[in-house]
Formats: sequence, C-alpha cells, structure tokens
Amino acid sequence: LDLPVALDAMGGDHAPDEIVKGAEEAAREGVPVVLVGPEERVRACEAFTGAVPVVDAPEVIGMAEDPAMAIRTKRNSSLVRCAELVTSGLAGAMVSAGNTGATMAAALFKVGRIKNVSRPGIASLLPIPDEDPVVLIDSGAQAECRPEWLVQFAQMGAIFWSLRVGGRTPRVGLLSIGEEEGKGNELTKKAFPELKAASGEVFEFVGNVEGRDILARKADVVVTDGFTGNVALKTMEGTFEFFVRLLLSVFSGSEEAKEVGRKVLELIAPVAEQVHPDTTGGALLLGVKGVCVISHGRSGARAIKNAVRLAHSMEKDHLVAKIAERFR
Amino acid sequence: LDLPVALDAMGGDHAPDEIVKGAEEAAREGVPVVLVGPEERVRACEAFTGAVPVVDAPEVIGMAEDPAMAIRTKRNSSLVRCAELVTSGLAGAMVSAGNTGATMAAALFKVGRIKNVSRPGIASLLPIPDEDPVVLIDSGAQAECRPEWLVQFAQMGAIFWSLRVGGRTPRVGLLSIGEEEGKGNELTKKAFPELKAASGEVFEFVGNVEGRDILARKADVVVTDGFTGNVALKTMEGTFEFFVRLLLSVFSGSEEAKEVGRKVLELIAPVAEQVHPDTTGGALLLGVKGVCVISHGRSGARAIKNAVRLAHSMEKDHLVAKIAERFR
Repeated sequence: LDLPVALDAMGGDHAPDEIVKGAEEAAREGVPVVLVGPEERVRACEAFTGAVPVVDAPEVIGMAEDPAMAIRTKRNSSLVRCAELVTSGLAGAMVSAGNTGATMAAALFKVGRIKNVSRPGIASLLPIPDEDPVVLIDSGAQAECRPEWLVQFAQMGAIFWSLRVGGRTPRVGLLSIGEEEGKGNELTKKAFPELKAASGEVFEFVGNVEGRDILARKADVVVTDGFTGNVALKTMEGTFEFFVRLLLSVFSGSEEAKEVGRKVLELIAPVAEQVHPDTTGGALLLGVKGVCVISHGRSGARAIKNAVRLAHSMEKDHLVAKIAERFR
Repeated sequence: LDLPVALDAMGGDHAPDEIVKGAEEAAREGVPVVLVGPEERVRACEAFTGAVPVVDAPEVIGMAEDPAMAIRTKRNSSLVRCAELVTSGLAGAMVSAGNTGATMAAALFKVGRIKNVSRPGIASLLPIPDEDPVVLIDSGAQAECRPEWLVQFAQMGAIFWSLRVGGRTPRVGLLSIGEEEGKGNELTKKAFPELKAASGEVFEFVGNVEGRDILARKADVVVTDGFTGNVALKTMEGTFEFFVRLLLSVFSGSEEAKEVGRKVLELIAPVAEQVHPDTTGGALLLGVKGVCVISHGRSGARAIKNAVRLAHSMEKDHLVAKIAERFR
C-alpha cells in the first residue's frame, strides 16, 4: 500500500502556484501526493494538470494567526485537513510550507504525540557536500526545554539520522559554549550527564560541541533547545547569505571581475546544488504519530517536490513506528 | 597623559612570540604598550627589540584552570598583574588572548565592576565591508541572564557602538526567534517590554531580530544572553570556515579551476582583510572599571596589534567614564 503525502497547497510565500507545481513534479517522479486546499484555486493554477488529486479545504490560516486558536476554529483549513488525512490513514505523511506554529499545532492536536514522548522537536537536516549530513534538533519547536527533553531529541534525531544516512551509530553532540562537561548554561549542565547515561545503543554521546563545530561535523546529531537551535540555524542562513552578497559585490566590479564571477558560478554550481536548502526540502517534526515535514516559507516548486519525497521516504522507512518502538 | 596598554604576554595559542611581535608593531605605530609576563621568556623572544617595557609576572594561567581560583591564587600571574596596572592607574587598558574566564575574573575581581552595572558583558564587533559594524553583546560572559541585564547590555553596547562608529543613535535589536513581540523564550519575552521602555536617548529599540538578521544589519547592536550570543558568534565563524573550505575544494580541481581560484583570491583580498577577525583584534568586556579587550585564543601578531590599538582608542575615548556616567 503506497499512501500519498498530504500537501498543504496554501502554505508558504509562493502558495498555491509553486506548491501545485511541486506536487505535479513529485507525481511525475512517481511519488503519490494529494493537494489539500481550496479546490477551485488549486485547479486554477497554471501548473495543475489533473494528475494530482485535490482534497477541498476552503479555509486558509495566515502567517500571523495564533496557531492553536487557528487549528481549533478553522476546521476546514488545509492544515487541519492534512492532519486528518494522516490520522484517518488516507495519507502517509503531511507537508506544509506555511505557518510553522500552526503546522506544529495541527500535528500535535490532530495527529497526536507518540506515547512517552514529552515534546516534539524539529529536526533540520544540514547538507554537507560529499559528506554525511548533520541533524540539528530542536531547531524551533520548544523555546524552553527540560534536560530530559534534550535526551529524547537525541534519541529521535539519532533514529532519523540512522534512517536517512545509516551505516554506523550516530554521534550526538550537545550544543554548548566550551567543550568541557562543566561549561554551558543550566540546561546544558543538567543535560550533559543525562545524555552520557543514555549513550549506547541508539547513539554515542560525544560531549559538548560549539557553534563552529556544527558544520565541521564534530557530531552527526546536534542537540539543543528550540530557541538556541533556531538562532543557530538562522545564523547559518544569514552568514551564507552574507558570504554570497560579498562574493557578488566583488564580482560586480570590472569586466574582468565579472568574467571571473561567471567561471566561479560554473565551478560552484554542482556544490551549491548539494547545499541548497531546496535540496533537502524541509525539516521533520519528530515525536508526533505521523510523518510531518515543515518546509521553508520561501519554498519554490523544487523545495516542495523534495519535501514530498522526504516525507514519503520517511513514511516508507517507518520513522514513526521506529520512534514509537524506542519509547514504548 | 598617554597611558600604555597592559598586554598579557602569555595569553593565547601563539604566546609569547606572536604577542611580543604584536606589541612591537603597536609600539612602532606609536601606541604605548607594556608587555606583562615572565621577563626572561619575553626578552628571549625573537621579535623583542627592547622598545617595549616589560613588567615581570612569572606565573602563567593555563587554558584549563578554574578562572576564579587561578586569579585568587596566582598573584604573580600576567593577568593579575595586568589588572593591577589598570587599577593603579599605571596602564589605561588591558588586553589578553588567554583563558577568557580568567581574563574576566581578573577584570571583575581586580579592576571591579562599574557602579550599578549588574553584570559585565562581552561586546564583539562584527565587521561588515563598506558598512558600519554590528556589536553583538553578550557574546559569552553570562550564560544565564535576567531581563534587566539585557537592558544594561543594550545601553553599554550602544555607548561602545557610538564611540566606535557614531553619527546617529544606534538601533538595538533583541536576538530572538520570530519578529513579533510575543515570540521567543521566557527571557526575551520579559526583556522585550523593558528594552522598549528604555528606548530613547542612548539607543532606539527596533524589536526582535533573528539569526539571519545579524549580518544583514537589521540592528547596530544585537542584544542577547551570553549563551545564545556565544553560540551565534561561533556559528558565524563555523559557517565562514565551511564556506571557505567549500571554495577551496572547488578551486583545487583542474588546472583551470586553480587559475580561477587564484583570481578570486586576488579580487577578494581587500574585502577579506576587512572582515578578518584579526582586523578587529578582539572583543570588549563592558561594565568593568577599566578597558579590557579579550582577544581570540588564536591571535597572531596582527590581531594583537589591532587589539592593543582598539584598547588604546577606547581608553582615549573615555569608554569607562561614559558608561559610568550613564549608570550613575
């Protein structure tokens, strides 16, 4: 049984056009997907061919709305409908590039938490060219965390990493300041011994890692609270953008500089493709009873297609069952 | 009266050779400096010409030592001697590339806190090519913070920014996740209204900023707790290093790629010079009764020279008096 991915047609800056386009591309590549949103609007999109089924959900949740309230009151919204399709077993996973808080609320209240998981966490996959990717968890779900939640994030992140990469026991690092056990804030000082005690079967705890160690691959899974994780993730994005602006300004000088710039662009294209956020497609909300992929608000068709692929493959690999098994 | 800068000759990975070299360079450029460390070792350094006075301090504080304990017991250490020179008025400022915790402890216990300042914070200057730099405070002094400390960091950071850049009232942003007032963790939610209330004379509060806004210059001064600030700072460093590794690997392929790489290096050199951490020289520990510059552990001679210059100029600009005046 190949269950389709329920895709929120109204989520993100480029909805519904780019979402519909992404869904069509995923379908062409053989990944089953259903579009969930206001049926007429979806069908009116230029990219819509009729190859992808549409589930009507006339209500839309805006980026600024209160997430929990929106999920409770807008029962005909695309997000609530996506979650219901997963719960009823008609869809195998859900994907949205919309309001992150509302997506989490839909997954949490409608799909539900896995038994014994205290809080869901967002696992972001950081691609490293020619190397294994790094998982950063929690990258934004829980702004305030207890030490034991970080241990759960480590376990869930490690299971995700193993399914996605595998081949060995993932190394888990605790994001902190200073490498020694005593260094950090109250949360990391308490979490350190708990992670050490949990080290073994699912992951190997390698101690504290610092901000500069994340992309240096000192750990396969970097564990942190959702506030710090989100700041770190967005700081990486911002630094990348800064660097790209810097290069572009350097290459916009003389004609010769422009020529060098063109050559650099050619050389760097295959690597840029590997590290581009669109290639990953999105982050996984781990700890809920269904595969839920949260895509970037700026997602275009390619990002959406890859998010649908990621969601589908995680469902095929029984991500949820594997986490549930661990937390039984 | 041109007071010299007291420079810890034994701090950092390349001490004492690179430190002595940096001191000699600063002296050649007319910045008064004294080297503080084991006299014989300092005098034995190749770069030592005798132009820079040496204050004997035979004891050395290691990177792994407990900071408060080391400062209390090693009274003949270079760090304690540096702090004493500032306290006695023989030096105008102190600079160290050694153990950050020990440098802070020396400044805090020997030089002392400015009246009404609750906690000192580390202000890091982030250089932006052809634009005003951004100050990130606290980048590592206080791992756990109260909301009112963040307001003090904003004030001190703004005074520092005004002395260093000036020309207008600095915009202060609160590092958080999500731009709206209600977004963030408990600390930022409480600090937001306090920063809003303090907005006016010294700085203009522009609300929450996210990780990706730091280098995009959405604020001149980015305020955060020392844990988050240190993670953000090191994540920027790590992302930069990642990007540089990426470029180098791309340019190490064919002969043609190597040729493109050489041209890029030529084009980028003037910009790289501007953003290189060595150009700034170090971060300011704000809130103590003396100018204290904390340099990177990996500082070479150029970084040290620039750190000495930064310390000297902040002393000349009456940084400490200006903060004290504000907190009276």
